[in-house]
Amino acid sequence: MSVYFSEKYRALTPYTPGEQPQDMVYTKLNTNESPFPPCEAVLKAAADAAKNLQLYPDPDCRALTSAIAGIYGVEEDMVTVNNGSDETLNFAFMAYCDASHPAVFPDITYGFYPVFAALNGVPYTEIPLEQDFSIDISKYENCGKTVFIANPNAPTGIALTRAGIARLCETNPGNVVVIDEAYVDFGAESAVPLVRDHPNLLVVQTFSKSRSLAGGRLGYGIGSRELIADLNTIKYSTNPYNVNRVTAAAGLASLQNDLVNRANCRTVAENRAYTAARLEQLGFTCTPSKANFIFAKSDKIDGGALYLALKKRGVLVRHFNKERISAWVRITVGSREQMDILLAETEKILEGAK
Amino acid sequence: MSVYFSEKYRALTPYTPGEQPQDMVYTKLNTNESPFPPCEAVLKAAADAAKNLQLYPDPDCRALTSAIAGIYGVEEDMVTVNNGSDETLNFAFMAYCDASHPAVFPDITYGFYPVFAALNGVPYTEIPLEQDFSIDISKYENCGKTVFIANPNAPTGIALTRAGIARLCETNPGNVVVIDEAYVDFGAESAVPLVRDHPNLLVVQTFSKSRSLAGGRLGYGIGSRELIADLNTIKYSTNPYNVNRVTAAAGLASLQNDLVNRANCRTVAENRAYTAARLEQLGFTCTPSKANFIFAKSDKIDGGALYLALKKRGVLVRHFNKERISAWVRITVGSREQMDILLAETEKILEGAK
Repeated sequence: MSVYFSEKYRALTPYTPGEQPQDMVYTKLNTNESPFPPCEAVLKAAADAAKNLQLYPDPDCRALTSAIAGIYGVEEDMVTVNNGSDETLNFAFMAYCDASHPAVFPDITYGFYPVFAALNGVPYTEIPLEQDFSIDISKYENCGKTVFIANPNAPTGIALTRAGIARLCETNPGNVVVIDEAYVDFGAESAVPLVRDHPNLLVVQTFSKSRSLAGGRLGYGIGSRELIADLNTIKYSTNPYNVNRVTAAAGLASLQNDLVNRANCRTVAENRAYTAARLEQLGFTCTPSKANFIFAKSDKIDGGALYLALKKRGVLVRHFNKERISAWVRITVGSREQMDILLAETEKILEGAK
Repeated sequence: MSVYFSEKYRALTPYTPGEQPQDMVYTKLNTNESPFPPCEAVLKAAADAAKNLQLYPDPDCRALTSAIAGIYGVEEDMVTVNNGSDETLNFAFMAYCDASHPAVFPDITYGFYPVFAALNGVPYTEIPLEQDFSIDISKYENCGKTVFIANPNAPTGIALTRAGIARLCETNPGNVVVIDEAYVDFGAESAVPLVRDHPNLLVVQTFSKSRSLAGGRLGYGIGSRELIADLNTIKYSTNPYNVNRVTAAAGLASLQNDLVNRANCRTVAENRAYTAARLEQLGFTCTPSKANFIFAKSDKIDGGALYLALKKRGVLVRHFNKERISAWVRITVGSREQMDILLAETEKILEGAK
């Protein structure tokens, strides 16, 4: 830290992304990436777009925005696109939170929310998940705060219903409700159909998981045109060209081939069911995940120990140093082959732990 | 604007990027892009990187950061890479400006500085350029403010010497001096060699202009490791994966073929001299630009009128609605062919204006 660093940020503790060790090739199940590379049409669109990289992208990303609007049945001015959904979320913290509009989110959720709050000097409250890690909607009703809910939640994978989200919006008319749907395409109900009737609802989605574009950085927000106008005011005052030319083209091609993405999501859901069943046979407890990861706890080995033992054997999963969930690990659902490696190594570890 | 938009941002006036009209194909000389597409090696690197877009990028961009450090003769931890240099500049406004560290920059300069200041609630002072649009360094000495200087300056193209920048740093030991070198590769002296001796110097550069990657969004900061650590604290609290996988690979390939970029810069400098000489023959006054644009004023037609007349004839240049420079236009230096179109159309307009 330099002597020049503003007081505002001196106490910041940045977000810790999932590790990316370079010492060997791992079966990487720690950052919820898709096991499926982008389809040929996306590769072709990316390569073609690269030929014009000397030119700035369209800051409005009109073609992409229009395609997103088309898929979700909303108008173009109800969509904003950003450099990954983290950027959309940060813009939402900027736009809708301040000293008189504190933030509220669960105690166990996406670890970036408290960082965004701290970055923007926003006071926040964490509401504990229930004993079974579910969210009790009633605890967020009439809360007088800007609500941030990941749905399905991370790292639990547990989802709220659309009716639950509607209740959240109706009971918080004076505040924005941000629903972070990074993992929604793997089996949960999207809140997008609610945006027309709920001017305080912002739905945030990403191309990172279900559309195999984590490396491209492409997120978006869907909401009333007034909310989207706010977020665009922030975008155009921060980084108007925030989505690069190749990613915009790749994202558009991905949407034009969205059936491929949906088929991939179904495969992931099948592999999730398969893996969870096998883990339960091995004595694990798994939450009812609707996401592309499994949150699991062994009756024989602690979460931290399992994480380390798996890493030694070349399998990366994610363990969170947080008391309430220290017994658990989060396992990305990959291909059947990756899942079989995970299960085989886990079995060996449990054998040794006997 | 929604009723939910935070008071902090309700009065924000976003930056206006150069127009990108879609009604016809223009000779586009309004956003200082390179006339040269990226070389084959960059296209290949981009296409290869796209094959792994399902995976997150390396948030540290180690290979790219290391290559930048190598080219500029600094250590890797003296470099941070971002989603375009606009993001680096915004991070610098966040990190080094606040109520007790106001910003200072010229009255005529990159139009994003006052927007970044407003976005971050930073008070700022604009110091008028001299009559000839040069910067008088002495007006920034011991100023008690965080200094932002574009060098060469935009839209004038006039450059300070490295010795001048050193004096700025020495006379402002309590504040950071940010030198925005977006256009430095076209003929000005970079301040990078000063960073070892001046812990308060941050140099910001970009791949957008001299390296033909405006569409990729890739900027970087070079400074003492303490300054870079500050900026990385902001980066990792905002958007750790801010540089996407394709752009990181394209940037690395571009650096590995930097001789191509340097040759392109020399061609641009030649075309600049050619065009400025021709414009002067037509009665224009041009500033002594060291950038990839010419700032020119006709003795026969006003800047706004010339901009409109050129646009009607299919040539886009940039005109700024700012009193002091309303007589001027900024013309990107493109290929010789583009320059000849500009000159021919300008001649026709001047004929008609007689």
